[in-house]
Amino acid sequence: MAANSSLELSPPPDFFQSRIEMFDKYKAEYDEMVKSKPRQEIHITLKDGNKKTGTSWETTPMDVAKEISKSLPEKLVIAKVDGVLWDLDRPLEGSVNLELLDFEHPEGKQVFWHSSAHILGEAAEKHYGCHLCFGPPTEDGFFYDMATYEKKVVPTDYTNLETLSKAVIKEKQKFVRLELPKEALLEMFKYNKYKVHFLETKVPDGTSTTVYRCGPMIDLCLGPHVPHTGRIKAFMVTKHSSSYFLGDATNDSLQRIYGVSFPDTKQLKEYKEFLEEAAKRDHRKIGKDQDLWFFDELSPGSCFFLPNGVRIYNALLELIRGEYRQRGYQEVISPNIFSSKLWETSGHWDHYKENMFVMEIDKRMSALKAMNCPGHAVMFDSRDRSYRELPLRYAEFGVIHRNEASGALSGLTRVRRFVQDDSHTFCTPEQIKGEIDDLFKFLDKVYGLFGFEYKLELSTRPDSFLGEIETWNTAEAGLEAALNEHYPGKWTLNPGDGAFYGPKIDIRIQDALKRWHQCATIQLDFQLPRRFNLKYRGEKQLEEGAEPPRPVMIHRAVLGSIERFTAVITEHFGGKWPFWLSPRQVLVIPVSKPFYDYANEVKDKLWQAGLYADVDNGAETMKKKVLLGEQAQYNFIFVVGQDEMEGRAVNVRNRDAGTKARGEILPLEETIAKLVQLKAERRLENTI
Amino acid sequence: MAANSSLELSPPPDFFQSRIEMFDKYKAEYDEMVKSKPRQEIHITLKDGNKKTGTSWETTPMDVAKEISKSLPEKLVIAKVDGVLWDLDRPLEGSVNLELLDFEHPEGKQVFWHSSAHILGEAAEKHYGCHLCFGPPTEDGFFYDMATYEKKVVPTDYTNLETLSKAVIKEKQKFVRLELPKEALLEMFKYNKYKVHFLETKVPDGTSTTVYRCGPMIDLCLGPHVPHTGRIKAFMVTKHSSSYFLGDATNDSLQRIYGVSFPDTKQLKEYKEFLEEAAKRDHRKIGKDQDLWFFDELSPGSCFFLPNGVRIYNALLELIRGEYRQRGYQEVISPNIFSSKLWETSGHWDHYKENMFVMEIDKRMSALKAMNCPGHAVMFDSRDRSYRELPLRYAEFGVIHRNEASGALSGLTRVRRFVQDDSHTFCTPEQIKGEIDDLFKFLDKVYGLFGFEYKLELSTRPDSFLGEIETWNTAEAGLEAALNEHYPGKWTLNPGDGAFYGPKIDIRIQDALKRWHQCATIQLDFQLPRRFNLKYRGEKQLEEGAEPPRPVMIHRAVLGSIERFTAVITEHFGGKWPFWLSPRQVLVIPVSKPFYDYANEVKDKLWQAGLYADVDNGAETMKKKVLLGEQAQYNFIFVVGQDEMEGRAVNVRNRDAGTKARGEILPLEETIAKLVQLKAERRLENTI
Repeated sequence: MAANSSLELSPPPDFFQSRIEMFDKYKAEYDEMVKSKPRQEIHITLKDGNKKTGTSWETTPMDVAKEISKSLPEKLVIAKVDGVLWDLDRPLEGSVNLELLDFEHPEGKQVFWHSSAHILGEAAEKHYGCHLCFGPPTEDGFFYDMATYEKKVVPTDYTNLETLSKAVIKEKQKFVRLELPKEALLEMFKYNKYKVHFLETKVPDGTSTTVYRCGPMIDLCLGPHVPHTGRIKAFMVTKHSSSYFLGDATNDSLQRIYGVSFPDTKQLKEYKEFLEEAAKRDHRKIGKDQDLWFFDELSPGSCFFLPNGVRIYNALLELIRGEYRQRGYQEVISPNIFSSKLWETSGHWDHYKENMFVMEIDKRMSALKAMNCPGHAVMFDSRDRSYRELPLRYAEFGVIHRNEASGALSGLTRVRRFVQDDSHTFCTPEQIKGEIDDLFKFLDKVYGLFGFEYKLELSTRPDSFLGEIETWNTAEAGLEAALNEHYPGKWTLNPGDGAFYGPKIDIRIQDALKRWHQCATIQLDFQLPRRFNLKYRGEKQLEEGAEPPRPVMIHRAVLGSIERFTAVITEHFGGKWPFWLSPRQVLVIPVSKPFYDYANEVKDKLWQAGLYADVDNGAETMKKKVLLGEQAQYNFIFVVGQDEMEGRAVNVRNRDAGTKARGEILPLEETIAKLVQLKAERRLENTI
Repeated sequence: MAANSSLELSPPPDFFQSRIEMFDKYKAEYDEMVKSKPRQEIHITLKDGNKKTGTSWETTPMDVAKEISKSLPEKLVIAKVDGVLWDLDRPLEGSVNLELLDFEHPEGKQVFWHSSAHILGEAAEKHYGCHLCFGPPTEDGFFYDMATYEKKVVPTDYTNLETLSKAVIKEKQKFVRLELPKEALLEMFKYNKYKVHFLETKVPDGTSTTVYRCGPMIDLCLGPHVPHTGRIKAFMVTKHSSSYFLGDATNDSLQRIYGVSFPDTKQLKEYKEFLEEAAKRDHRKIGKDQDLWFFDELSPGSCFFLPNGVRIYNALLELIRGEYRQRGYQEVISPNIFSSKLWETSGHWDHYKENMFVMEIDKRMSALKAMNCPGHAVMFDSRDRSYRELPLRYAEFGVIHRNEASGALSGLTRVRRFVQDDSHTFCTPEQIKGEIDDLFKFLDKVYGLFGFEYKLELSTRPDSFLGEIETWNTAEAGLEAALNEHYPGKWTLNPGDGAFYGPKIDIRIQDALKRWHQCATIQLDFQLPRRFNLKYRGEKQLEEGAEPPRPVMIHRAVLGSIERFTAVITEHFGGKWPFWLSPRQVLVIPVSKPFYDYANEVKDKLWQAGLYADVDNGAETMKKKVLLGEQAQYNFIFVVGQDEMEGRAVNVRNRDAGTKARGEILPLEETIAKLVQLKAERRLENTI
């Protein structure tokens, strides 16, 4: 698709009107069709088992809601009919199971935000005269991508867009659904090449799809939606960025506007407070304030970790290395560049090439590794293996590169270069449970150190699956048994949602701002061992002509990407690091010059004990130094003067005690020993 | 240059003869010219201060040697006249300083091996009818590159080549030197496109260069050479490989034959013994035997480190990290991919691009980092800097990639992917001495742990240099002072041989086989800080319009490439790892089944103490297990039976004690404590 060209893209001046006329014509035909449908009594079964009756092609979910209670309809966002999302105003066509969802329901929220995206789209069409492209809900709101020709979105547009949106909301425009043949839609959207592209590539000839209208805005959209725009009580434009059509940098450059909305203004207020708190804790801000890391155009998506950032990074690696030692994982180092031959064997060349950095070496194509697993399969296969070596657990802190679109890069959370704490365990199906048992203990131990709550979800065999059904059964039974032992009643099942090559367990952790993050993963893999033809000598003698057994591979990570996990904990702790993770553990402040030497001695002793200590021998007042030390988030400040020097002691001030608190005079050696213990135990509390 | 074509390359059948005829014609002219030169008395000053007299255009260095002693001439390889290497038979042209070099002199050795390469060339021309390309001496012998058309060199050719060479040696062919105009040489070598290429690209029109003849072999060559082929008393073809003309894979593919030679057959015998010992210690062999690492076609030049290899690798990193902590180095992590803009600023894009892996990202050229320094300059420049922060020492264990020619790759010594223990110190010129002082202590400490002897060489300001002369003077004075303090009388000076951007100190270590390796480097750099416009706020207020001061950069590495250093120590220790580096520290062997549990308990205790321990509960006899344990190079073998279990003891067998030695019964806890100490002290001796 060619780059932006205003000639090509400029909309005809009458494009609102002509769309509407076409839509209304088809709507009238549809209404006629509905009228002609036979009316019958239908039975509606509610989620709680209650039953209602109604009339086919007349009764809507909203009618049912009104019957249940007077206040219910206003709270509802969407219905679910026989498991399918369904507009509240859309007539039921027969007897059904019915569920009524409000904003608090995850799917209700998605519909609510999707409808809000249409409102934003309507406002944007009015404001910019733009061509809309794609406007989905997201995890925390919604966005709309649009071609705005020469105009670029600027933050001062936000107020205008919000005002226009609020007018749309005030008009309580109904969301009207219509299903039309592809040919009619091509005519209706011929002014918009993006919608035409969707129609041409996603909708087969001779079939129909849906459009939704609210006010003058008509959009190609699968829906469903809230009944009318008036349901959106609080609406806010949050940010914008640029993007590419279909996420491909060779396509048109688009503008993406983000927003969020709620059924209640109070929720928006809370959300703004949350945003403020999140902004204060933003890992990019804290990274700059605390001299931890920075990013540069010279290497988009790759972080520069400054010395204090590396202290945190290495403390995480050290934690995991210690666990590896206890848990029988073996560290390996594999190459960063692999010939395409490896990626062809692993299947990534066909399915993942676009996400890899590819280059030509020795006249053959190669790629930077985007994951460690294929390399570990090569290592398993580097010599004959025996059942006595299983489970064999290869772990690697290898540098991984993934070619994320430059527009999608964001701090440490979306990067191109990262390191994972991943491992690949080669084992028998019977060994899976034992591996998962230990992995759960591993998770408990590690997440406990950060105070993270977490939840687990098991996804099992899909309809189309690879491998032997017995292997699947053994594996799934092992996973379920381990889940039931460790997390009885606390995990959820997602039947049939596993990958075709193996079941998986998703783990999500919740941070201090109640946000959920996926860090750990457990993925069983019956495919890669086949692709790499991995095998081992089994305990029993092979029968003539029989195939030697294949290992199962378990991919797993606990922290996930160290980069992303670092971002998560930076925001989780708001930059107030627990002692063991802290790059600034102790600041020593002499009350005046005669005590500089003693202050340096204290610092050196701390350093020799393996702690990170600094001394402030600068010209500022002691009070000012204490304040600066607290701002820099030193966990403890040791003030030393005459008494401390004479008593070989330190006056200890706790970071969390507040500036007015008085310190406590403690013997130096004993205090250092306590700090060493605090670090070794990796305690969360900043106390000795 | 086109790929090999036998039609194009095939030599004319008379190419020996026509060359010789031309050569002899010119030689006669030359002899006439020499005859016509005026004869005068000349004064020859020897290295020991003695003086001799002679006649210009008649007296040769060999004549002088004969005057000195009867036995001297036969030992001599080459002369040095006023600092320039000079054939022993070539007449002196005036009064000169004369030095006479034998095989033991490094330059004598190079001439000896260069002459040997001509002998190999002559043999190869006869054997293959090949076109010779380039035949230089190397650090441990010589090679000749040649185009052999359809014939590939095979090991069975070695004997033939040696027989032909020995015949050449027996003939005592004189090496005859001649200086000829480029045009005459183009005619003489027109049958050989490689020699023509050298003439066309290296010799300016209208100038002359030299050829040497020995027997039928005439070669374009700057010389000089031994007097005649008979000087080579022992000659051996050692190996062969393929290469490319000018090292460029897009040029003709050539065959490279390596050899070695000596003035004494005894030396060849010793050399063969050395080769046998080196082969036993070859790190590729030990890597396979001990399950440490392997290489694979899927990633040429990148090592796969297996778990036991990573134990060694990480022990090295841990050693260096510990030193960093003591010495105020700060670890950073910088990206692996950088935009060409960085490399343009650093100068590598112009001068080093061919050695980097280059790729297109976001429509711009980028390259994998081939060194850490430019990234560290960016980090220094990421915010304002004050003199109070200097010296700032950034260290990184970053993954480095260099695009070495695939033919040049060799085990861990010549790789494409490696990690350096390098650092970049930003300091003032006055701080250089202090940095170097500490660095020497660092070297002493680290190299001492391996038992390496080492030597240092200072290279100072060349004629064309960059920067202020005062900076150079301060820097060089600092380096010299540090060298004199730490290594009085033990370092050498290489005046004028520094890089244009700063002086350097080369450090070479000697391994157990007396081979020298360059691992550590110290390079001062006045250029990169300019290119990146690095500056800091000085102690004094800047005068109006004055430039803020720039830091000096010190590049340094102690181990150098961890990969290469690992190869060096593998061969240095011959796979018998000192305890602290050993991936297999203790093997526990129960004498029979009833003691399996106790054996496992002992192993667990060792493991908890941070040691690498295994237990052998296999079916073999105890004697066999001990033998296998010794072959696997476990530092200690603990045998446990009834007495040991009852006494909570272990029977300790030292790896180095020999299989017949009896073990010593020692209390378990005490033994573990001693082992922990042995590891912590990183002692070389395998004793507790």
